[in-house]
Parts: sequence; structure tokens; C-alpha cells
Amino acid sequence: MAFRAPISQLTKRASQSTISRLTAPSPLWQRSSANQLRSFATPVPPVTQDATSSKGPTAVVFMNMGGPSTTDEVGDFLSRLFADGDLIPLGRLQNYLGPLISKRRTPKIIKQYAAIGGGSPIRKWSEYQASEMCKILDKISPETAPHKPYVAFRYANPLTEEMYNRLLEDGFGGGKGGRAVAFTQYPQYSCSTTGSSLNELWKWRQRLEGKAPDNVVGGGNDGTISWSVIDRWPVHPGLVDAIALNIEDQLATFPEDVRDDVVLLFSAHSLPMSVVNRGDPYPAEVAATVHAVMQRLGHSHPYRLVWQSQVGPSAWLGAQTSDAVSEYIKKGQKNMILIPVAFTSDHIETLYELDEEVIGESGHRDTIKRSESLNGHPVFIQALADIAKAHLDSGETCSKQMGLRCPGCKSERCAESKKFFAGQGPGMTFAV
Amino acid sequence: MAFRAPISQLTKRASQSTISRLTAPSPLWQRSSANQLRSFATPVPPVTQDATSSKGPTAVVFMNMGGPSTTDEVGDFLSRLFADGDLIPLGRLQNYLGPLISKRRTPKIIKQYAAIGGGSPIRKWSEYQASEMCKILDKISPETAPHKPYVAFRYANPLTEEMYNRLLEDGFGGGKGGRAVAFTQYPQYSCSTTGSSLNELWKWRQRLEGKAPDNVVGGGNDGTISWSVIDRWPVHPGLVDAIALNIEDQLATFPEDVRDDVVLLFSAHSLPMSVVNRGDPYPAEVAATVHAVMQRLGHSHPYRLVWQSQVGPSAWLGAQTSDAVSEYIKKGQKNMILIPVAFTSDHIETLYELDEEVIGESGHRDTIKRSESLNGHPVFIQALADIAKAHLDSGETCSKQMGLRCPGCKSERCAESKKFFAGQGPGMTFAV
Repeated sequence: MAFRAPISQLTKRASQSTISRLTAPSPLWQRSSANQLRSFATPVPPVTQDATSSKGPTAVVFMNMGGPSTTDEVGDFLSRLFADGDLIPLGRLQNYLGPLISKRRTPKIIKQYAAIGGGSPIRKWSEYQASEMCKILDKISPETAPHKPYVAFRYANPLTEEMYNRLLEDGFGGGKGGRAVAFTQYPQYSCSTTGSSLNELWKWRQRLEGKAPDNVVGGGNDGTISWSVIDRWPVHPGLVDAIALNIEDQLATFPEDVRDDVVLLFSAHSLPMSVVNRGDPYPAEVAATVHAVMQRLGHSHPYRLVWQSQVGPSAWLGAQTSDAVSEYIKKGQKNMILIPVAFTSDHIETLYELDEEVIGESGHRDTIKRSESLNGHPVFIQALADIAKAHLDSGETCSKQMGLRCPGCKSERCAESKKFFAGQGPGMTFAV
Repeated sequence: MAFRAPISQLTKRASQSTISRLTAPSPLWQRSSANQLRSFATPVPPVTQDATSSKGPTAVVFMNMGGPSTTDEVGDFLSRLFADGDLIPLGRLQNYLGPLISKRRTPKIIKQYAAIGGGSPIRKWSEYQASEMCKILDKISPETAPHKPYVAFRYANPLTEEMYNRLLEDGFGGGKGGRAVAFTQYPQYSCSTTGSSLNELWKWRQRLEGKAPDNVVGGGNDGTISWSVIDRWPVHPGLVDAIALNIEDQLATFPEDVRDDVVLLFSAHSLPMSVVNRGDPYPAEVAATVHAVMQRLGHSHPYRLVWQSQVGPSAWLGAQTSDAVSEYIKKGQKNMILIPVAFTSDHIETLYELDEEVIGESGHRDTIKRSESLNGHPVFIQALADIAKAHLDSGETCSKQMGLRCPGCKSERCAESKKFFAGQGPGMTFAV
């Protein structure tokens, strides 16, 4: 996905969100939020492998695209983003066109980050989410405790390499084995998001721990880190409930006489049609999330799934979010809620694109609203813990679905990465 | 959707299906199937409105695209299909290009229908499904009994006009009121399928019962037929279960050592990207069905949602079913099940396109299989009855979703039809 680029610092909007969450009557949140906000950047303490203890410690690595925490980091961020052939396939021109495009876009994107407070809040939210989730996991999954939170971003610090070196410093791998779970923070799987993060993780695993022997699936048996993957969770009830609760919060702000007919516009980052037509599973999984949320809401409102952040001249999946909003306004419908449904934290696509561009330029800031991103919602954090617990209990290395490449996939990297993470069981030969 | 064109008579494949269903140990099916098969074409007996009785009789009209029952009907069928601007938008050239294209395609499509037995089985299945469903409804919804089955096809006999005249002859409307439910047989809503059928129904309602006064929503108060609509049911548990059972039947035919890794390819009729980008809800609802089926199967197998029947030079939604099959074969994966997920009866897209073209030409007829269409599956018939019962109990005229036009919709007919069926409640002004 050609993400226009994520954001920084708790911004205007994110601050409001933080404030409202901090003052919300949630025992879970109130208990730990103040300490957490202070310890966002606290390094994870070193852990020691203890062969005689339970199955723990367990590293849980939150994978996401990341975003520049300050405007100074925008250049590096964009340059990594446009260098990623999984996200923006430029073929043999990648090394030439990538830097060119990123350099040209940098000034514009810096302005956008400046407008939302100077950078992306995604690192702070990710570190908070991972850390809070691990606290819950320690309680509900004592047999794999202690759980150690890590964050690995694809295009911003902490990068996968940095995360992996910290894992090694903290006592994982290096002959001692140990278990790590790669937990994608994209609820719906796309080869250009989760797939790209896993390909990067696989690359650094090979570089820092050596080539895995053919008989070692997912690593581990030879003293390297034993990896498993939570690769998608599009309809987890906790995710669905958290999104629905945020929608209900926004609905409550509309006058009663129009509330029942507010149009819900679920907005997800679009994909180029070349990726859709390759067979990428993302559009169908996003649709599954949307349908699950509407079921949770009792199909109480009319809705559409629309797609945002298209860039460049090639064809992208629509309808476009911005077009949908302006078309509905033309048809006389001015009461809408935009619902970010494929990202879990605020980022430039919510704080700038939706809030400033789509809503800000609509002329109807009072009646076109956006539901909060999940950020630190306690129902969401609990969902993350429940998803991780179910994964740890299952003993699976990844979903059955992850072993299957897209029908139109030509990427050897993708084949190798899938082979490592999904294993080589019978019938999985097609993943090679 | 530019459906390539449906089919006729219980064909080679459909016959096998019928036989297997007839011999299946289902009490429900065994009780009535023999009589039903004999009475496929039996006209519905006239009903008399009885103001003193329960809320019945209730007409239940199965809406579908239909197909030529014999090869002689292919020309008329195609000519209606290409005249439908909701399905194939040719703009001002519709009246000129439509006949031209349909005439040119007729010989080829006649050959396809000849290859599958001489015509489409969709009429027989539809009449059977509607009639069986009404028998169940009479038992589980006595307060709206008797239930009278009707079928209205968009491009083949019985056409909407014919069905509407039969309704009037049978004692509905004509000053006596009476209730009719338009029950789409497309589980997932598209403006080019269910939307087109509803626009046609609305047209004939206006022609045969006159313009509804502004204060009469859905008709009825002035002695005309009171209409309500079952406009979509993509994740009904009975639908999902019936599809899953058919998949499990096919899985059981694979040798045990490969069974767990058979790839499930859910195949739905594609849409032109112009319709997708207008905001048509169909792709998201098809994806919801697929995800629900995979949940019911416990995500036991790798899968993809792919799209079939693309025609012409314009861009259509992919990945294409035929490409996906050949690409997986190239990757070494030869064990697959194709699953028709957006049609409920066999038609030319299953019997010819999937069975003869995609599977037949793959070179792997032994390991690439197709799960049965729902046809007369007793779990499916029960699901239809449950859906109708829930609708009758709800008192709703249609889903909340139906009132919302697509963001990019420019069709005045669509606006008027939605106004009639969805009503004009507060906030529904945008449907006008």
C-alpha cells in the first residue's frame, strides 16, 4: 500500500483522545495509564532464559509500518517506504524511482506532519499497547510468562533490525533458543503490510541468526529464536466490539432526530488494483471486519466500505472515501461518521487525511465526524491479550491461510519467508 | 454484472446433484422431493383475500436473473440482458449497442447451453426452492399463512410482468390489498442484480397498480399490494452451513494425505470496476459470506476469494478464477475446490464456465473439483424459510442498508425505486 505516510507525538486529536480515555470510567485503564504514559519509551529489561522454568519468557513483537516521530525523520521514513517493493512495486526501477519520489514528496509530507503536531503518535501508542497487553498476558497466560513487549516498525524507528538486536541482547536466541511471537498490528492481512513486515523479519532473522537448516521450521531447535506469527485477526470479537463502541460514542453526539439515519462510512487504506488482482486477501478481510461490526451494531444504520489514500496515476480500489463524502453531501446526506477500520492507532491518514482534508474541506465539520482510532481503548488492549493467549495456547506457528501465496505472486522473497514461517508440511509445497 | 448467461433443464451435473440429494438421509427432503420434482411447473393456485383471517395469504416472490430453459430462448434472454442498463451500463448507446452485442453473442452462448444439456435449470430450481420454502413457512409462520410461491426473473420467463399479472389474477392487489415479499435470491446485494430486479418490480408495480400516492410507502393502504423486501442475507447461518456442508462433501473425496491442504477457491461473478468504484456493496458482502463460511469450517484450509466471468475490454474486479487456478497449478498446487458463493442454483457459470472451461481445460479434472451449488439442499431450503420468517416477524419493509444509494450512483430510477421500497423516513431523503 502506498501509505501517504504516518505521523507524530500525541497530537491535537490524539491528545483529546488520550484525555477522554484517561478520564473514562475504566478500572483497567485508570489503574495503569499514568505509569504507562510515563514509561512509553522505557527499555525492556534484559531477560534471562531459564531452562527449568515454565515456557516463558515470551517475546511479543508488535509489527507495524510505523511513522516519523518528528518531522526530521520524514525523509528517512519516506525513503524506506518507497524502497519497499512489497508495498510499492516499482520493479527494476525501485532503486532509481524510489529515492526520486520520496525526495519529491518529503516537503509536502513534512507539512502534513507539522499540521498534526509535529509527528506520528504510532510509536507511543504501539509501545503502550504492547506493554499493557503483556501485563494482562502475564495474568491470563502464566505458563508462558513473563511476556516481554517489543515493537518493530517497517519504515521508522524502532526498525526490525534494532528490535532483533534487542531480542538477542535480552537473552533470546544466541544458542539459548527462546520463543518470540510476531504479532501483526494490521488486523487484516495484506502482502504489502503484514507480508512486507514478515519478509523483513525473515531477512533479519537470516542475517543475525544464520540460515535455518532445512529441517528447522520457524527456527528454535538449534538454539535460535523460535518464531510464531499472529498474522491476521479481522473479526476478533474484542476488535469488533472496540470499533463498535467508538462508533456508538460518536452516534451519541448526533441530535436524536437524525441519529438513526447517520451514514457509517468505514474507511480503509486502498490498494493498487495490481495488488488486488494478484489475489491479495486484504479487501476481503477488511470487508469481513466491516460486516462483523455491522452485525455487532444490529445493522442499525446504512453504511458503506470505502477506500482512502490513493496516490499516483495507476488504478486503485474504490470507491474513494473523499469522493463518497462529497457525493453523499450532494445527495443531501450530511450526517456521517468516518470509521478507520484497518489501522489500530492514529496516524496521518486519520489525523490529517480524514480530519483535515476530507472532513475539514467538506464544509460540514459539525455533522461529519470521525470515530476514534482504537489507540489505548481498554477493550482493544484486552482483545490483543485474548488474541495472543489463544495463539500461545494453539501451538500453531501461523494461520493455515498464511501458507498460501497469492495466485499471482511472483515474489521469491515471499515464497522463502512463507516457507520459514508457515513450515513445510504436506501440501505446503506450493508456498515454496 | 455482465453475466455470460445462465442455463437449462436438469443437466448432467445437476442430475447427479439431484440424485444425490434424493438419496440423502434427510427426512425433510425425502418427505416432499418426489412430489416437488413432479410439480415444478405447477401453477400456483388462485388465492382469495380474506379480511377476517390472519395476516395471510402472503405472496413470496423469488427474484433472480433467470436463464433460458431451452436454447431457443437464448436470443431473447441475451437481448433483455444487454438492454439492462443496471447490469450493463452502455449509456445512450444502450438501445443501439445492446441488440448488436446480444445478437453477436447468441450463437456462442447457444453452444454453451447445448453443452450443458440444452438450457438452464434455474427455473426448475427456483420454483422448487420457493415452493418447498412456503411449505415450511406455513408451519413456522402460521400467522402469515398460507404462503404462495412466485418466481420473477429479470431476463427469462417468468418475467416480472408475468409474475405481477399472476399476483393480480390470484387476488392480490386490485383494491383488496394483500401482502407480498420480494425475496432476492442473490444472497449478496449488487445494484446490478437485486437492484435491477427491484427497479423492474417497481416499474411494473407502477404500470399495473398505478403511481403510489406520496404518503403510501411500499404500497398497500390504497388497496394495492403491500410490498416488503428481503434484500440481502450474505451471512445467514443456514446459508453458511449449507455452503460449508457442500465443501466438506468435496473434501471427503480427496485422499487423506492431501485433504488438509486442499485450497478452497471461492468464486463469485465479478463486477466491472466502474460499478465497484461507484460504491456497490456486492464485493464486501461476498467477502462477508466467504469469511463466515471459513469461520464455520474453523479456518481449516487455505483459501482465496476469486472472481469469474469477466467479459469485454473494460477493467473488472480480480483476481480472476481461471487465472488463479492456472497460477496455483504452476506453483505446484493441484488440489483445489472451486466454490460457487454468489449464486444459489446451478447455471451456466457453474456448469459450463467452471466445470467445462476452468476445470475441464486445467488438465487436472481428478484433483480440481467443484462443490455443489445449493440447488435443493434441505439445509438451504430451511435457511430460506428462516430468513423469510425473521423478515415477516420484523415488520420491516427492507434492510436499513437498502435505503442508502451508492455514493457514485447517478440513476434516477434507482432513487425512485429505493424511495418506494425503503420509505421516506427521516434521514432517508438522500435516497430520493
